[in-house]
Amino acid sequence: MSRTAQYVGVVGPGSDVTEEVLAEAAEVGRLLAIAGCIVVTGGLGGVMEATSRGASVAGGVTVGILPGAVRDEGNEHLTIALPTGMGEMRNALLVRTCDAIICVGGSWGTLSEVALAVRTGVPVVMVRGWDLPEGPLPAPDASAAVELALTLLDQR
Amino acid sequence: MSRTAQYVGVVGPGSDVTEEVLAEAAEVGRLLAIAGCIVVTGGLGGVMEATSRGASVAGGVTVGILPGAVRDEGNEHLTIALPTGMGEMRNALLVRTCDAIICVGGSWGTLSEVALAVRTGVPVVMVRGWDLPEGPLPAPDASAAVELALTLLDQR
Amino acid sequence: MSRTAQYVGVVGPGSDVTEEVLAEAAEVGRLLAIAGCIVVTGGLGGVMEATSRGASVAGGVTVGILPGAVRDEGNEHLTIALPTGMGEMRNALLVRTCDAIICVGGSWGTLSEVALAVRTGVPVVMVRGWDLPEGPLPAPDASAAVELALTLLDQR
Amino acid sequence: MSRTAQYVGVVGPGSDVTEEVLAEAAEVGRLLAIAGCIVVTGGLGGVMEATSRGASVAGGVTVGILPGAVRDEGNEHLTIALPTGMGEMRNALLVRTCDAIICVGGSWGTLSEVALAVRTGVPVVMVRGWDLPEGPLPAPDASAAVELALTLLDQR
Repeated sequence: MSRTAQYVGVVGPGSDVTEEVLAEAAEVGRLLAIAGCIVVTGGLGGVMEATSRGASVAGGVTVGILPGAVRDEGNEHLTIALPTGMGEMRNALLVRTCDAIICVGGSWGTLSEVALAVRTGVPVVMVRGWDLPEGPLPAPDASAAVELALTLLDQR
Repeated sequence: MSRTAQYVGVVGPGSDVTEEVLAEAAEVGRLLAIAGCIVVTGGLGGVMEATSRGASVAGGVTVGILPGAVRDEGNEHLTIALPTGMGEMRNALLVRTCDAIICVGGSWGTLSEVALAVRTGVPVVMVRGWDLPEGPLPAPDASAAVELALTLLDQR
Repeated sequence: MSRTAQYVGVVGPGSDVTEEVLAEAAEVGRLLAIAGCIVVTGGLGGVMEATSRGASVAGGVTVGILPGAVRDEGNEHLTIALPTGMGEMRNALLVRTCDAIICVGGSWGTLSEVALAVRTGVPVVMVRGWDLPEGPLPAPDASAAVELALTLLDQR
Repeated sequence: MSRTAQYVGVVGPGSDVTEEVLAEAAEVGRLLAIAGCIVVTGGLGGVMEATSRGASVAGGVTVGILPGAVRDEGNEHLTIALPTGMGEMRNALLVRTCDAIICVGGSWGTLSEVALAVRTGVPVVMVRGWDLPEGPLPAPDASAAVELALTLLDQR
């Protein structure tokens, strides 16, 4: 693994997600893996699982930063599953470990990650998420989101 | 201090705040102190300082959960100033220590706290903040916000 | 409360403690309160409770940094009880919030706090604790421990 | 990567280490990698670097849980480098992410990790470390340490 690999966090709801959002998440994971990025998620279900699956199937490396203290709560597509026991405080840890964040879909937990990323200067791209003030950059679909995130990373 | 005291977090921007927002924050702090609540903030300037000042002048107890590792970065109206060295991750800690959150004004850091509170079931009241989907309850001013927060706490 | 108050953490086992150790802990708490220090503990039973009681009876301010997510797990002698939900990771937080540490008695959890304090340059005084290499300063009893801690704080 | 891989943390001083300790650390890393374990360290120099190098050369996966907020502070043998910005608080996080800990050499930071591991029920094996009360199991060299750690993991 190159030390210059980019770490991209993909955040989104763990449940109550439409098939469309899940498909978009899987595609984001796949494209990030193909681009050589390490894909970081909260490690659970929903968008987190779909993204990890998409990245994993494409041969990518996936990291799950789990809220609980038990590794087994991680989904089955994680290369590295890290229990933190920090609960939702792990959202802040996840943001800190990433060079950029792509948000797919919206939820309050997701919003906390997006807000922390903007607050701490981590570039954020949003697909199918909430309408928010200037800060996160919107993208129409997975392909545009990954392209935009990679462009932002190149500019850093 | 009664063990049954309620801990109310007041969150809001640390800079670029209008005088109106600062006045509202100070009034929130004052009213919470009069109600016997312990007032928890991020301990720095802007809304955090105004709230702590308002509470302190009214004889209240104020706690500051500081992002840095140095106690002196706390404002001068804190009864208890706790350096955490956790950076913005302390936003999640602040939310966890509180029974309810009142948000005065809006910023990305503030939004992360509001979102985490909603996510983890902590009641949130917002004054002069951002428009957000269902979750945080809006209040027109400090007085209404404190009254609403106290009502929510009574119902728990 | 003066902003110049010193925060002294008192660490020690939460259970399986002798009466002698508990008495020493209560005396440490009492003497710290009299000296105007804010007394910080892990907020639970055993040495933590005895220390908080000693400080509280003497009119001192006591802070409990709790491992769990529920305020009620704190003992009844805490002025401020802060649930963190961080589990034993809160040991590191406790050390960071303190200007000096007094260790009364020994346990593995306590040792983690002592080691982190030495590692991060926080002065440590030990009463009735484990034999450790150079680092923590031993004291024969509560009175000597508090005196030594205050001297170390004056020298900072 | 199998989901059943064991995560073994290797802790030890980041500086002021003898060549013998570094050689032992590298051998621990190598043997863990051969055994299919994921090797977790604090990601910096000294024992952390030697262990990561040993594991990496043997084709293993290495994770670094960094204290700072910058990925580049990690050594060059990390498959995954995770900046936490938590300072020494990351020691507690490291312990939580591991199924067992092997300690090579001694320092105060290392001791905090060993103590937290014993406190939270994570098996600990020590090579060339400090003399401590019952808790961590001593091993004469890298080979014995890894064998003992794997046996303890099998028994869980």
